Amino acid sequence: MATIKDIGVAAGINILTAIGFLVAFAVLRLQPFNDRVYFPKWYIKGIRSSASSTTGAVRRVVNLDYRAYIKILNWMPAALQMPELELIEHAGLDSVVYLRIYLVGLKIFVPLAFFAFAILVPINWTGNNLNSNNNEVSYSDIDKLSISNIQPGSSRFWAHLLMAYAFSFWTFYVLYMEYANVTCMRLHFLVTQKRRPDQYTVLVRNIPFDPDESVSEFVEHFFLVNHPDHYLTHQIVYNANKLAKLVEEKKTKGNWLVYYEGKYERKPSKRPKNKIGFWGLWGKKVDSIDYYTSEIERLTKEEAEERERVKKDPKAIVPAAFVSFRTRWAAAICAQTQQTRNPTLWLTDWASEPRDVYWQNLSIPFFKLTFRRLIVAVSFFFLTFFFMFPILFVQSLANIESIEKKASFLMPIIEIPVIKSIIQGLLPGIALKIFLIVLPTILMLMSKFEGLVSLSTLDRRSASKYHIFLLINVFLGSIITGTAFDQLSEFANQSASKIPEMIGNTIPMKATFFITFIMVDGWAGVAGEILRLVPLVMYHLKNSFLVKTEKDREEAMDPGSIEFNVCEPKLQLYFLLGLVYATVTPFLLPFIIVFFVFAYVVYRHQIINVYNSKYESSAAFWPDVHQRIIVAIIISQILLMGLMSTKKATQSTPLLLFLPVLTIYFNIFCKGRFESAF
Amino acid sequence: MATIKDIGVAAGINILTAIGFLVAFAVLRLQPFNDRVYFPKWYIKGIRSSASSTTGAVRRVVNLDYRAYIKILNWMPAALQMPELELIEHAGLDSVVYLRIYLVGLKIFVPLAFFAFAILVPINWTGNNLNSNNNEVSYSDIDKLSISNIQPGSSRFWAHLLMAYAFSFWTFYVLYMEYANVTCMRLHFLVTQKRRPDQYTVLVRNIPFDPDESVSEFVEHFFLVNHPDHYLTHQIVYNANKLAKLVEEKKTKGNWLVYYEGKYERKPSKRPKNKIGFWGLWGKKVDSIDYYTSEIERLTKEEAEERERVKKDPKAIVPAAFVSFRTRWAAAICAQTQQTRNPTLWLTDWASEPRDVYWQNLSIPFFKLTFRRLIVAVSFFFLTFFFMFPILFVQSLANIESIEKKASFLMPIIEIPVIKSIIQGLLPGIALKIFLIVLPTILMLMSKFEGLVSLSTLDRRSASKYHIFLLINVFLGSIITGTAFDQLSEFANQSASKIPEMIGNTIPMKATFFITFIMVDGWAGVAGEILRLVPLVMYHLKNSFLVKTEKDREEAMDPGSIEFNVCEPKLQLYFLLGLVYATVTPFLLPFIIVFFVFAYVVYRHQIINVYNSKYESSAAFWPDVHQRIIVAIIISQILLMGLMSTKKATQSTPLLLFLPVLTIYFNIFCKGRFESAF
Repeated sequence: MATIKDIGVAAGINILTAIGFLVAFAVLRLQPFNDRVYFPKWYIKGIRSSASSTTGAVRRVVNLDYRAYIKILNWMPAALQMPELELIEHAGLDSVVYLRIYLVGLKIFVPLAFFAFAILVPINWTGNNLNSNNNEVSYSDIDKLSISNIQPGSSRFWAHLLMAYAFSFWTFYVLYMEYANVTCMRLHFLVTQKRRPDQYTVLVRNIPFDPDESVSEFVEHFFLVNHPDHYLTHQIVYNANKLAKLVEEKKTKGNWLVYYEGKYERKPSKRPKNKIGFWGLWGKKVDSIDYYTSEIERLTKEEAEERERVKKDPKAIVPAAFVSFRTRWAAAICAQTQQTRNPTLWLTDWASEPRDVYWQNLSIPFFKLTFRRLIVAVSFFFLTFFFMFPILFVQSLANIESIEKKASFLMPIIEIPVIKSIIQGLLPGIALKIFLIVLPTILMLMSKFEGLVSLSTLDRRSASKYHIFLLINVFLGSIITGTAFDQLSEFANQSASKIPEMIGNTIPMKATFFITFIMVDGWAGVAGEILRLVPLVMYHLKNSFLVKTEKDREEAMDPGSIEFNVCEPKLQLYFLLGLVYATVTPFLLPFIIVFFVFAYVVYRHQIINVYNSKYESSAAFWPDVHQRIIVAIIISQILLMGLMSTKKATQSTPLLLFLPVLTIYFNIFCKGRFESAF
Repeated sequence: MATIKDIGVAAGINILTAIGFLVAFAVLRLQPFNDRVYFPKWYIKGIRSSASSTTGAVRRVVNLDYRAYIKILNWMPAALQMPELELIEHAGLDSVVYLRIYLVGLKIFVPLAFFAFAILVPINWTGNNLNSNNNEVSYSDIDKLSISNIQPGSSRFWAHLLMAYAFSFWTFYVLYMEYANVTCMRLHFLVTQKRRPDQYTVLVRNIPFDPDESVSEFVEHFFLVNHPDHYLTHQIVYNANKLAKLVEEKKTKGNWLVYYEGKYERKPSKRPKNKIGFWGLWGKKVDSIDYYTSEIERLTKEEAEERERVKKDPKAIVPAAFVSFRTRWAAAICAQTQQTRNPTLWLTDWASEPRDVYWQNLSIPFFKLTFRRLIVAVSFFFLTFFFMFPILFVQSLANIESIEKKASFLMPIIEIPVIKSIIQGLLPGIALKIFLIVLPTILMLMSKFEGLVSLSTLDRRSASKYHIFLLINVFLGSIITGTAFDQLSEFANQSASKIPEMIGNTIPMKATFFITFIMVDGWAGVAGEILRLVPLVMYHLKNSFLVKTEKDREEAMDPGSIEFNVCEPKLQLYFLLGLVYATVTPFLLPFIIVFFVFAYVVYRHQIINVYNSKYESSAAFWPDVHQRIIVAIIISQILLMGLMSTKKATQSTPLLLFLPVLTIYFNIFCKGRFESAF
């Protein structure tokens, strides 16, 4: 059991790490040659461009103004200054509403922490359970602040019960107000947006095959008959992979042409030449400008031919179309109603904005969609509960001996003691680490396989999966040590009423573990986010080796975006921890509050200066966020119930049993009241 | 354990009872004075009327034609003769589709029985498990036909596993075809119906309060603004309870007037007189015809006044309206879309046909609706699991001693030995019997409290509740003896994987009990249904004491209707039994098939000749029926899994585990494919 001192040391280390990251960030961001890493958003917006050549060469690379270094934290107030409306204008509603999740965290946990410390901590502190049997179990000062310090069967548990009600109701209040607020923001945002074609457009999928008409004619006739007064036009979707390749090739070659032209301009004495073989390493030597000019001409012609071919080839036509209407009202009607008797044909839905469309999935028929969903559901179940097996298998293969056997030429290197011990230390964890890094990608692939047609829904679906995975393998997995599969078989063989008891019992003991987790993953992790180490290194590598023209430099810049499918589920873990421990070990709450404050500032800074969102879904993810906080509340209530019953306070069970029912009811109410706006 | 002989005896008794009922029916239905009990549908349709006075008085009461008595079963082919299309015309689509449920039962169970007897019965019969340890447990010949006769761990279980797959797939096939068929019938029915105002009308609820306008003006303005091209007219809903009372009173008095006028006509010598006090027993004596004529005049005037008052009184106006549109298309659009930002206001839905509207619930606001649903959910849970407690309490009060104490004047009667023993025998069960009789009414009241606005949805909702109650208290309650509450606490304290094993283990032992249940409740119950004993007695009682005019006789006739909320859930029990026992004890299947055939013929006869449906929902209940059969399939699969694992055939568990997943997937597919038509 960690004492307060241990926690203090851990906090110190993590705070130092975070401060180290922040100092590094403060210094690096001031250097002009890092400008495109730390302020890409402004370049994309066209407000900044590459440093002009009037200042000296050194000045363009390193910031020598000592005054800038004094205020190393001045980005923080700057990040908070931009008002919300301007931020919506600057970065879109998605980002702003995403930031509100952190604010919701603060709105929930600041009052919770206050009341928990004012009421529960004194009650726990004077509980004397741990003093009375201190020779039996080891305990720490933190445990004296927690529910563990209350004697079994004590009437002091009424306080925890009451606080559980109070905390739940306060969370309901915050969630309800926030849902109302986000709904209002979303509707306002949708109304005040500039006219865009996708507001008048409906995506039609599963257009049936007609032997007499082309898809385009069929769509036109169908909508002329069924929406005669409102139909305007339509756009057929083509499968133009070859065309896309040609366009890409033309772009690359155009880039080379610009490069050589620039070179020739600077040195008009010598016309640049290059080899046309693999990577310009061998082959015939040609005059670069002439060669690329002729190549681009050729590609332009081929492109036009391919475009014609695709338009005429019936096999290149996907059974989906974007149908536009004269009014938004008509588009709304068409998007929300069923078009034919058979609800699996002529499926209509709002068209996503063009950036948001995931083109590959537009042509999947209905039957396949349901089948794919089944496959994904089954494989997700196996992924969640059985992912440890392949990893254990890989780990059993990846030991020093088998490497030596398979690749005996490596023997001399491996046998060096230092390298050997490093490999032996790293290998066992490496398969798991790699798995956890690629997990979001795997989940995204699964979601893509399910056949969703927009990037925003893909992100949301992946986030749901990741949330479940974290819930089972990180939260439950940390509480009940052992793999998810062990848990599954244990749960299957345990009685239903014993499971919450079993988990509830271990909850207080894991508080220090989770406090450390919050500091490492939360505090230091967020500070690492602002440093952008990977994009920094990547940018400078690209800049040194690949960048030829100004356009290349634009593209080497990787602003990234809030990765909703990863960040939001991780964030939900903090809500869960906070809600679970609010009544059990209130000592954990301040750590969560610090995380929320820090993360809010950092992400606000990143959204203003760095991230460039891939799409704008107008905060369509809020119902998911709301839903997951509700799940966290229910889990916390059930675990408290389990904990209470191991504490011989079973008279509280019926009262606590009512809380999840109330929470579910609250959720249904919110669904009915707000969800239709999303 | 019952042997085949015991079953034979029970079958004999029940067949005799059924035959007794059928003979009684065959005789009673031929008597003209019972005509209105056994053929009310034809009177309502106006095809029959009271026997004309040309035939003799005796002839009008008793059928003396001996030839009619010879063919006592000729109603059966007659019931089957009417073709389906004519039956839809005659009795509506609801009734016809309801009959199809029986046909679905036959389509599922006849092939199942065939293959079970051809494949599983020989395998079970030669299993030799019961012979080898016959000194330990008692067994019967039926058990030798069942899965109990297979030795634990035998590879013969593969046959049962395979058959479980085959049976599930066959059931899927039948369900899919039937869903497609019913969908088609429903759409065809809706298209070919005569034009009716409710096809162009939308029910609007939760109209917000406007201080400046009346509800009527507000509705008109709202729809003129939002549906300017399509809005036709609207009808405000008034709370006119007082008016309804006046109308009722006028009707009764009008009836008396007709009675006295008829009396005067027959005996013109003496003007009829009556007393105007309570029940005509005392008070002033007046000339009846004058009195009632003046009364009706007064009521007509009061009615008109009240009508005016209601129209003007803002408190009498319910915040709901029926809004009619120019086209069905516009009505469909309005019914299916959200009208304002706030999805809890201006709720629109298809108007039910006028007979189907449940007026009392039109004015409940959204917030109350969710709250009421919560209350009903909680109280239904308590009703299902704790209903035995009040009954046990009543039973503890209702014993001879306490009756003697409370009502000592009854002492002399109660002390007579015969009466005492009858009371002692009847009393304990009586509270339970009464409860089970009033249960559907209680469930209907619950559904009404939930705020549903049409009789058809009320019926469907009550049916769902009754289905759950029967599932838990009759099916599970019969398998695991004990009250539902005992089960609940047992389940909570059992491990999740043990529950199916526990139930699965007792399943084969309960086969004989369920066979008896099918014969008593199914065979004899259906024969009792056709006899219509209660309506028969009630009609003759009313006819003797209350009927004064021809119109009264019309009203004394109680055709009844298929009580969907009671009959359908009961019917589902047979599906469940058949599916559960198909792989376990195939011997049960013929009993179920006999039930389905017999019930089909009886209900077809009743629908043609007796029932008069209260409303026409165009088979909107089919998704519920489909869903419940799916639930039955899943239950049967889980129980088979439990049974297999007690039989040490655990290697089959993963294969069996896949079946429920497949079933759920099938259900999702059917939902997507068909449900939007309902």
